[in-house]
Amino acid sequence: MNGNRFGRLFQVTTYGESHGPGMGVTVSGCPAGLELTEEDVQRELDRRKPGQSMITTSRGEPDEVSIQSGLQDGYTTGTPIGMTIENKDARSGKYEPFITAPRPSHGDFTYSAKFGTRNWGGGGRSSARETVNWVAAGAIADKILESEGVQVKAHVNQIGDVEAPEVSFAEMLEHTEENDVRCAHPETAERMQERIEEYQEAGDSIGGSIYFEVQGVPRGLGAPRFDSVSARLGQALMAVPAATAFEFGLGRDAREYTGSERNDEWAFDSNDEPVPVENDHGGIQGGITTGEPIYGELTLHAPTSIPKPQETVDWETGEEKTEQVIGRHDPVLPPRGVPVVESMLSLTIVDFMLLAGRINPDRLDGQPGEYDTDYHPSSPRSE
Amino acid sequence: MNGNRFGRLFQVTTYGESHGPGMGVTVSGCPAGLELTEEDVQRELDRRKPGQSMITTSRGEPDEVSIQSGLQDGYTTGTPIGMTIENKDARSGKYEPFITAPRPSHGDFTYSAKFGTRNWGGGGRSSARETVNWVAAGAIADKILESEGVQVKAHVNQIGDVEAPEVSFAEMLEHTEENDVRCAHPETAERMQERIEEYQEAGDSIGGSIYFEVQGVPRGLGAPRFDSVSARLGQALMAVPAATAFEFGLGRDAREYTGSERNDEWAFDSNDEPVPVENDHGGIQGGITTGEPIYGELTLHAPTSIPKPQETVDWETGEEKTEQVIGRHDPVLPPRGVPVVESMLSLTIVDFMLLAGRINPDRLDGQPGEYDTDYHPSSPRSE
Amino acid sequence: MNGNRFGRLFQVTTYGESHGPGMGVTVSGCPAGLELTEEDVQRELDRRKPGQSMITTSRGEPDEVSIQSGLQDGYTTGTPIGMTIENKDARSGKYEPFITAPRPSHGDFTYSAKFGTRNWGGGGRSSARETVNWVAAGAIADKILESEGVQVKAHVNQIGDVEAPEVSFAEMLEHTEENDVRCAHPETAERMQERIEEYQEAGDSIGGSIYFEVQGVPRGLGAPRFDSVSARLGQALMAVPAATAFEFGLGRDAREYTGSERNDEWAFDSNDEPVPVENDHGGIQGGITTGEPIYGELTLHAPTSIPKPQETVDWETGEEKTEQVIGRHDPVLPPRGVPVVESMLSLTIVDFMLLAGRINPDRLDGQPGEYDTDYHPSSPRSE
Amino acid sequence: MNGNRFGRLFQVTTYGESHGPGMGVTVSGCPAGLELTEEDVQRELDRRKPGQSMITTSRGEPDEVSIQSGLQDGYTTGTPIGMTIENKDARSGKYEPFITAPRPSHGDFTYSAKFGTRNWGGGGRSSARETVNWVAAGAIADKILESEGVQVKAHVNQIGDVEAPEVSFAEMLEHTEENDVRCAHPETAERMQERIEEYQEAGDSIGGSIYFEVQGVPRGLGAPRFDSVSARLGQALMAVPAATAFEFGLGRDAREYTGSERNDEWAFDSNDEPVPVENDHGGIQGGITTGEPIYGELTLHAPTSIPKPQETVDWETGEEKTEQVIGRHDPVLPPRGVPVVESMLSLTIVDFMLLAGRINPDRLDGQPGEYDTDYHPSSPRSE
Repeated sequence: MNGNRFGRLFQVTTYGESHGPGMGVTVSGCPAGLELTEEDVQRELDRRKPGQSMITTSRGEPDEVSIQSGLQDGYTTGTPIGMTIENKDARSGKYEPFITAPRPSHGDFTYSAKFGTRNWGGGGRSSARETVNWVAAGAIADKILESEGVQVKAHVNQIGDVEAPEVSFAEMLEHTEENDVRCAHPETAERMQERIEEYQEAGDSIGGSIYFEVQGVPRGLGAPRFDSVSARLGQALMAVPAATAFEFGLGRDAREYTGSERNDEWAFDSNDEPVPVENDHGGIQGGITTGEPIYGELTLHAPTSIPKPQETVDWETGEEKTEQVIGRHDPVLPPRGVPVVESMLSLTIVDFMLLAGRINPDRLDGQPGEYDTDYHPSSPRSE
Repeated sequence: MNGNRFGRLFQVTTYGESHGPGMGVTVSGCPAGLELTEEDVQRELDRRKPGQSMITTSRGEPDEVSIQSGLQDGYTTGTPIGMTIENKDARSGKYEPFITAPRPSHGDFTYSAKFGTRNWGGGGRSSARETVNWVAAGAIADKILESEGVQVKAHVNQIGDVEAPEVSFAEMLEHTEENDVRCAHPETAERMQERIEEYQEAGDSIGGSIYFEVQGVPRGLGAPRFDSVSARLGQALMAVPAATAFEFGLGRDAREYTGSERNDEWAFDSNDEPVPVENDHGGIQGGITTGEPIYGELTLHAPTSIPKPQETVDWETGEEKTEQVIGRHDPVLPPRGVPVVESMLSLTIVDFMLLAGRINPDRLDGQPGEYDTDYHPSSPRSE
Repeated sequence: MNGNRFGRLFQVTTYGESHGPGMGVTVSGCPAGLELTEEDVQRELDRRKPGQSMITTSRGEPDEVSIQSGLQDGYTTGTPIGMTIENKDARSGKYEPFITAPRPSHGDFTYSAKFGTRNWGGGGRSSARETVNWVAAGAIADKILESEGVQVKAHVNQIGDVEAPEVSFAEMLEHTEENDVRCAHPETAERMQERIEEYQEAGDSIGGSIYFEVQGVPRGLGAPRFDSVSARLGQALMAVPAATAFEFGLGRDAREYTGSERNDEWAFDSNDEPVPVENDHGGIQGGITTGEPIYGELTLHAPTSIPKPQETVDWETGEEKTEQVIGRHDPVLPPRGVPVVESMLSLTIVDFMLLAGRINPDRLDGQPGEYDTDYHPSSPRSE
Repeated sequence: MNGNRFGRLFQVTTYGESHGPGMGVTVSGCPAGLELTEEDVQRELDRRKPGQSMITTSRGEPDEVSIQSGLQDGYTTGTPIGMTIENKDARSGKYEPFITAPRPSHGDFTYSAKFGTRNWGGGGRSSARETVNWVAAGAIADKILESEGVQVKAHVNQIGDVEAPEVSFAEMLEHTEENDVRCAHPETAERMQERIEEYQEAGDSIGGSIYFEVQGVPRGLGAPRFDSVSARLGQALMAVPAATAFEFGLGRDAREYTGSERNDEWAFDSNDEPVPVENDHGGIQGGITTGEPIYGELTLHAPTSIPKPQETVDWETGEEKTEQVIGRHDPVLPPRGVPVVESMLSLTIVDFMLLAGRINPDRLDGQPGEYDTDYHPSSPRSE
């Protein structure tokens, strides 16, 4: 309803503004018995955090997570996991000019139009800072998926007109984190980096896209019709800041394929089980997973905060004015978007696995630690 | 959870299989006081129904809706509206070959993988027949939107490699229903029709896409972050059968635009209110509506049921076999998809308007009919 | 939101007014593989239906259920089960006097106050007729529980000042259906019957209560804090028409017990598992089931429709007037309430069992019938 | 699903264990424009906090709330409000004996049975400490209600066999906070205090009950059937720790009333509006509010943690043993339960008011502070 909740069994609830005291996320529905430390979460936050390279904002946020609940001796207990992250480098002053003179294509106007007010420092609730919560929650989802053999990976496959050639999943695993752009094709990454710097120098920003792939997804996930895997991914990924297009399988190109070209025929695999011989369907048929990898792309438009002068109006003074958004802003979104996209994928897939009974909603098989309070009834109930 | 529910305040719940006794949809959350007849719903069902032209399946379904509840003297009462639609022309026999030998890229395999069984006649629950429920519900949503000055319209803008040029909203209103393809550009419609017939004759099918636009949307709708308008539309439209790509605003092209190109500057309109001078943002900024038209595209892959021989396997007998899906199938989906896309848009927008308090959740201002039981307390409560 | 939905994984959605064309209920989340016939549902509807004895309304409704979807060869498929029940003996005319002159303590005034209108025939949406939907859904829940060894039973333990002594679960199973009052203590049943007839003859009605018990509940169900078993039962049973008090375990009497009196000490059972030596806790500790029987009581106030003259006002004419509600009304609610209470218990417990992974959300182990489309992958996913 | 969420439009999400690092609650759906300070919340937390008198636990928690988000210049912004409360006086050591030897009638066994593990210090997630989150959220709900003229009040009306006579709403407002027992009848309060001390000295505890009343509730709230006001209150109040009975209106006594006795006839009030002449219906008819006060009672069983020796078993060692729960425990729950009950009432009523459109879901009319970002379009949308 209020936009700060995601997931049905694996439930995420967030709060926080860019320049408020802190960000926070509550994860409920994580089964008991998962080994979990703050380091597990921190590792992912570090991939998303600002100031990690020349092509990200220079805001200096350590993004240190603190786990407030849900653990006993380093294992989850099945009860809600509260996590908090302080905001330490907020400098709201430079946002004063925009309070009633909205930045072009930003959330300034729309938040005020909706609520009649807004937390205006650093974009407030509309800031991409919110995704720190998503990545923290995604880190937990990812640990569960890992224990079930599911792997989620994304990389940057296009920046402006610089496109990466197709890469394998193995290449994504190997190369994505090697460069600041997070493109799994090293040569392209270099060209992307150059292109980004050109726009940065010109006081401008540029769009791009992220390719994602999920391997090891069980067959039979999805709740068509309205909660098909494709529908839920549509929601999850279109919620990513600046997303303007979501595609899976052949995506937009499917409009030019015939049925006979796109259809994936069936064969038997080495276990004599039906398996599609190709994967033009992107891992989803009739809204339900086939067991083949899910793959697709997400397009993110160029950041709207740019130093180039732009025209706007002040609804308080009634004046037209020229604005420059000078400060600490990303010139391009996909590089930091990679962990965000991975998180949304992990959250969505874990949720479907719980719904499908592929993961016991109450307990994993992990060792619950020093104080073993585990109780396994030999009969399901008393007589 | 179970995929048959859509909406948060304006709630749709569906049931039905392609060849079962009937389809049904319950709409709850429709405010009281809306004038509503079965004809209002029937009109929309007729646009979606099979057998309406040479390029749709020849299945002979009258798709007659019966309203079971929620009315008093022709006006809604605010209580749930139950609607039923009988299935009359089901011929399951021809689906027997596919019971354990799944059709390529259809839901046959995945439904069985998920549930261990399925209603296999005519595709069962995975059939696009389900969308008759959506259109019935959408017809009610649409009547509410109409009374609020919101207009939803879609047309077919591409079939295979035949692309329509850009058309205006007025052209969509005028021309879309004039031809069987539902393309608002009459010349292109003819070429599309020819192309479809070519594929049909070749025993094949072809993909395509639908352009949509919503005019008159109030400012301030949307519940970022996870329930931003873009995220909710992502879910709503990716639930449409065969959808592989959802785009809004610049869509996939946004990856090649710079910030300065895409950003829409602000000016004052004739009422001295801030208004973006262009609409590259597609009516949504920060996940919330700006009041500008929402527009975008949905790509639908080619129908998977084609007469051309295809290879598959039978998991019961262990045999490989060649299949032909001969029968009453659409060679292309967008023409009948137009009312389906419009319905999902209407359902989504009405829901957001209710959430935003733009429509009284309990009552519209309509005349409640002969038996006026209306009660307007002059004080909000007794003393 | 709109009050016609119940359950989280086992989801019930209803529509229908007392004197409208028909009632309907959609059940989604029922696992595949459950053998189910219309007779299974009909049997329970017959227990609830009007006209079954002298102490129920004489309205002549056959209450014949029709299953519209969700089955293949007599087994559930995991997809939504749509059920419809026609209204055949509606006579709205006699309700005309109450359109704008509300019957005392009925829903006439409040529905109009909420919606500004209402379906006024026979109480419309506020009528207890709605519970026909609940019982239809409950019949399905009950079949699942039966297969899991869970038994739900209720009987009438008080009518006016006539109280039944405590009875055993076995007595409830044996005697409840033997008499029109549905009291498991035959002698008391006779006295209750007499008392009811006295009130009936006096043109009045009388209150009463239902005792319920659930045996075989697995340990560990419940989602405290807000969705503890007690909280969810509180909602489920307080939704029953005319409910004014919900109690479990010692109920209201607990206020006079000390901790040492009420606390149930732990011992080992014959399997060397911890078991409480008594069950003053009513099967629930900390909001979660202990495996001991859940038991409690629900109080239902006297029916508000009585032939005795009563004062009211007409908000249309501004007149004060005397009203008599003559017609086909129950003089007491608990006898027909027994299957309703059982249904709400079954729906609640099944939902908790699904949430706890005690029942596979997608499949039961039933035989899926002639057309075996079952597919059991030997490996959880393709490689 | 996971039990840490309450409310539909006014949404509360909680985390925290008794002896973990901290408690936290996220409130979303609070309209923008409400003046809110930490003091507003603190005031209510102080009423609930431990150590406030001789008849509460001596645990020394300051329960200091910190608001992390959702404000601009002291006014709410419509975005989620995150609140955190540190745990400062946790002493887990004394709970070690109970890790695998459950305390009688506590949540020790059931949490372990559900999750196979648990956070065992101080009762972990099952502790009544969780209600600090509810009271924090309730404080915000209460501020909204106050601005709408709705007043929620509760007091302790029975402890063991000591019953308070009926008191007026004015007496509740005046006297409840004057004594440690929170009974609005001063003489009875004294007797209750004595009785509690007797049980305390005997190493025992005692049950009791809370009477509640809500004045100024608008007519027409409630979403029957499953979300009637009575059903939702049933859930809300049965979630209160130790609740065993929920009653409204005549409650359990309704079973002995005839229809003619209980029915409330209609008259015109001074505004010529229909008004019930009595309120035996407890403010709710047909599940919807009449505008009359909602009133009822909640029974809380005796605290289960008592110093008296009790028998239990250790599931790890297989031994039977005698336990004493010595430490900082309340001898009776209703006195500290009063603000908890009030909070659950406020949360429930605010949620219904939002659903009914009685409060704009996005904006209140409050003054949004120094930086006025308010934007009131003169036309609802651009042209």
